[in-house]
Amino acid sequence: MNRPSEQSPPSGFRARLHTVIFEADTPAGRAFDIALLWAIVFSVVAVMLESVAQVRAGYGHWLHIAEWVFTILFALEYVLRLIAVRQPLHYARSFFGVVDLMALLPSFLSVLFPGAQTLLVIRVLRLLRVFRILKLGHLLGQAEVLLTALRASRPKIIVFLGTVLSIDVIMGAVMYMVEGEAHGFDSIPRSMYWAIVTMTTVGFGDITPKTVLGQFLASILMVMGYGIIAVPTGIVSVELAAAARQPLDTQACPGCGAQGHDLDARFCKRCGTALDWAPSRPTG
Amino acid sequence: MNRPSEQSPPSGFRARLHTVIFEADTPAGRAFDIALLWAIVFSVVAVMLESVAQVRAGYGHWLHIAEWVFTILFALEYVLRLIAVRQPLHYARSFFGVVDLMALLPSFLSVLFPGAQTLLVIRVLRLLRVFRILKLGHLLGQAEVLLTALRASRPKIIVFLGTVLSIDVIMGAVMYMVEGEAHGFDSIPRSMYWAIVTMTTVGFGDITPKTVLGQFLASILMVMGYGIIAVPTGIVSVELAAAARQPLDTQACPGCGAQGHDLDARFCKRCGTALDWAPSRPTG
Amino acid sequence: MNRPSEQSPPSGFRARLHTVIFEADTPAGRAFDIALLWAIVFSVVAVMLESVAQVRAGYGHWLHIAEWVFTILFALEYVLRLIAVRQPLHYARSFFGVVDLMALLPSFLSVLFPGAQTLLVIRVLRLLRVFRILKLGHLLGQAEVLLTALRASRPKIIVFLGTVLSIDVIMGAVMYMVEGEAHGFDSIPRSMYWAIVTMTTVGFGDITPKTVLGQFLASILMVMGYGIIAVPTGIVSVELAAAARQPLDTQACPGCGAQGHDLDARFCKRCGTALDWAPSRPTG
Amino acid sequence: MNRPSEQSPPSGFRARLHTVIFEADTPAGRAFDIALLWAIVFSVVAVMLESVAQVRAGYGHWLHIAEWVFTILFALEYVLRLIAVRQPLHYARSFFGVVDLMALLPSFLSVLFPGAQTLLVIRVLRLLRVFRILKLGHLLGQAEVLLTALRASRPKIIVFLGTVLSIDVIMGAVMYMVEGEAHGFDSIPRSMYWAIVTMTTVGFGDITPKTVLGQFLASILMVMGYGIIAVPTGIVSVELAAAARQPLDTQACPGCGAQGHDLDARFCKRCGTALDWAPSRPTG
Repeated sequence: MNRPSEQSPPSGFRARLHTVIFEADTPAGRAFDIALLWAIVFSVVAVMLESVAQVRAGYGHWLHIAEWVFTILFALEYVLRLIAVRQPLHYARSFFGVVDLMALLPSFLSVLFPGAQTLLVIRVLRLLRVFRILKLGHLLGQAEVLLTALRASRPKIIVFLGTVLSIDVIMGAVMYMVEGEAHGFDSIPRSMYWAIVTMTTVGFGDITPKTVLGQFLASILMVMGYGIIAVPTGIVSVELAAAARQPLDTQACPGCGAQGHDLDARFCKRCGTALDWAPSRPTG
Repeated sequence: MNRPSEQSPPSGFRARLHTVIFEADTPAGRAFDIALLWAIVFSVVAVMLESVAQVRAGYGHWLHIAEWVFTILFALEYVLRLIAVRQPLHYARSFFGVVDLMALLPSFLSVLFPGAQTLLVIRVLRLLRVFRILKLGHLLGQAEVLLTALRASRPKIIVFLGTVLSIDVIMGAVMYMVEGEAHGFDSIPRSMYWAIVTMTTVGFGDITPKTVLGQFLASILMVMGYGIIAVPTGIVSVELAAAARQPLDTQACPGCGAQGHDLDARFCKRCGTALDWAPSRPTG
Repeated sequence: MNRPSEQSPPSGFRARLHTVIFEADTPAGRAFDIALLWAIVFSVVAVMLESVAQVRAGYGHWLHIAEWVFTILFALEYVLRLIAVRQPLHYARSFFGVVDLMALLPSFLSVLFPGAQTLLVIRVLRLLRVFRILKLGHLLGQAEVLLTALRASRPKIIVFLGTVLSIDVIMGAVMYMVEGEAHGFDSIPRSMYWAIVTMTTVGFGDITPKTVLGQFLASILMVMGYGIIAVPTGIVSVELAAAARQPLDTQACPGCGAQGHDLDARFCKRCGTALDWAPSRPTG
Repeated sequence: MNRPSEQSPPSGFRARLHTVIFEADTPAGRAFDIALLWAIVFSVVAVMLESVAQVRAGYGHWLHIAEWVFTILFALEYVLRLIAVRQPLHYARSFFGVVDLMALLPSFLSVLFPGAQTLLVIRVLRLLRVFRILKLGHLLGQAEVLLTALRASRPKIIVFLGTVLSIDVIMGAVMYMVEGEAHGFDSIPRSMYWAIVTMTTVGFGDITPKTVLGQFLASILMVMGYGIIAVPTGIVSVELAAAARQPLDTQACPGCGAQGHDLDARFCKRCGTALDWAPSRPTG
């Protein structure tokens, strides 16, 4: 997500293009970004509407035209973006560059494979630019806190998913044997699908145990799922709490620059230098 | 929710009216409020009963009369409230003023649009007055703690809802393509409804994937929903914990500056200096 | 749950009876309690088995006899308990006294109202005595921690339940109007049942919205339920954490006897007396 | 899970065998383990595929052969493992020894009882060896943290399960009486299955209350389940937080005795005295 050619601004036409397309601080840039966002919203809504049979019957032709108009506009925008930056490849390989390209392809694919235009909903990812326009940088910070929390608990999550998968495979096989094909458990993969539906407490009810033994095993699986659901919640809670405590970072040791001291620390835990005592959490 | 004309009490008839209607400290005021609450409960129950076909067949006429009696009583009460306060507009624009008015309109609307009287259940919001009668002020305080916790985590909640919505749109489109109209996924909006039903672990089962690929994708969505459900829980837990801890931060020892004393601490736990005792939370 | 006549032991026959029936420290008392527990388990299982049509057809007669044998035994035991204690009324009004009586009544009721014997499952509550036999006193302590945590958060829980009920009434009425009787939402109470099923993420699927507007409103209700489920979890987590921190209680001030000091406190927060510093959490 | 004969390495052929089979540090040992893992994965997938009717019709013969090839390979491996260790019984009784044997038996059982080969999915447990190959020892550490958290809260979990079971028995009996056999609640055990399905918020919808009283009781059960789900989550959160905090407690300042230093602290945060530095958690 690194914005390309930030180091030294390009000059002339390219510079102005860059300001308008990539930044939101000037009136022109802001207007461009807002227009772009609405175009994205309308194009995603158009794809959704086209999937509704009644709407397609009445307005399918117009939606088809709208879709191509949006695609051409977005293609134009993509080319302009490539021109505006000094290192086009850098942009093309960035997160937004890839999303921008993928948001164009389904229209062209739909010529060969009718129906592929449904994939245009990937354009919804382009809406992430909204953060820059609305100056919602702090929201991105929050997303980062959430991601940090999740990343910090990755090992625990892997162990957790491994446990879920093992229980899933074994319960799937057992229920396939106990209930059998007569009751909808007609293969181990399908039984595994049922076990996931049950363990996650979704419970569609499209496949349900009918035998007494099957219902007993299902009950055990459900109570287990009940307990298992507690694990990710506990992990995320703990990590979020740890991430929220990070304000510790504001105090740097005058001696060695070390950070991460406790709020009540009076000496650097790394080098022993006295820390300037300051009310580190003024308002809360 | 600011109570109007609190500054200086109105005199004479209006003063007595105000005491009876708006306060619950005098016997008359208390009796009025309790009668009002029961009237609200009965009127809401009457609306509920009227919706039951068998009851409507047998007692529809009486319920219709009861509904109009309650409406006239509440209209009278509304007028009296307007008279009792010095600044009627102030009351009319307050939270309870708006609710009181909205609790009357459906009856009159039902003359033009039969069935609109169902909206009378909005009267249930009038029951919030119960807090004043039962002296449950501390419960409102608790509601405030919950709201503060939720408000503090608003940025995280927006990011969370944005993530849910993005996954919803993309999974809706993918499942629409994979399962198709034959299996109930007959439009992207309907697929999105299914994705929400699945991700929130509700799992009605009115629409379910039938193909192997669809069931596989659904399994992934379910496990993801399982993980996603952890995020709001973690957020609220952390914020509730922070809200519960906060009062501690306000008191610093005049002797050594130490913070983090308990609410009932009268001497610094670090150096023994007397703290300025102030009843920050009187009863608990 | 106060055990009666604990103050001074009764003498003679009653004393021995009391030891056998009410205590589990002597071999006889222990044997009595274990026999009692198995009798309770068998009697509950008998009631369950009697409800299964196939079993009732084959062994109904024997189960009926077993039921009366257990009832007579338990009635005898109840009388002995009344004799064994010095204040029979005290026992009869205690928690276990009431449960013991209620565990007898359904058998006699079933003479008048066939089917009432199903209520005999209330005997399952008598199993709570198991805690005394298995010396699982510390488990009762854990139950108390859980109850304390729940009681401490009672105001928050009342506010929470009030919110759930308000949303339930309003959503019930709205869905009744939107979906109508044709789609299963045939009265406000039934719609409220559906709203509870949806908000709690149970999602039976016996009633589901069919219209686009209904499905949209249901989606909002589900995401809200998703968020609301976080509130009780957060409350209980915070209170459990607070209850777990209570080991603070072990240190009493030598000056004023005040308890509840922080782990790092060196002076009493109530009177300023120096506390004897001792590693208050030895093993963890 | 103790690895047998670790004390002094066996010599000659057995030593080399042991290195190859039990260790993953030499190229040969690593290659053996990776080949083994893929064989396990393929054998489990083969069992799954065989359960799918279409696949069985087309490739059943080949899958049957594959199954026996894998079984013979794994039997050979089991014998080699017995030979490679100095105390075969020690290995045979270890966790992996038992799993390795159980992963062979179903094939032989299927000769007597057709269909028993489904149990071969128990081989999925053999995949736990993956931790050794991928040097994912720290993941096992995470699993231990999770297990410690769960074990520490065992008393609370027993009380919790006891509560769930009691509510389950009583609600099962009540719903059996209220709804009766006509609505699918045709025995107490089946009603108990329904109560578990409802309380855990799974909600299959295969059995649902039809009477007004039944739906009212179900609503109460659901809201209760809603609250009960908070208890295990709260327990696990608190224990995970405690487990994450614990390493701090071990280090006391030699100067002032202060505790609660960070893991990377080298000087006391209270008085600045140098702490005995010991790498309590080296990398992660």
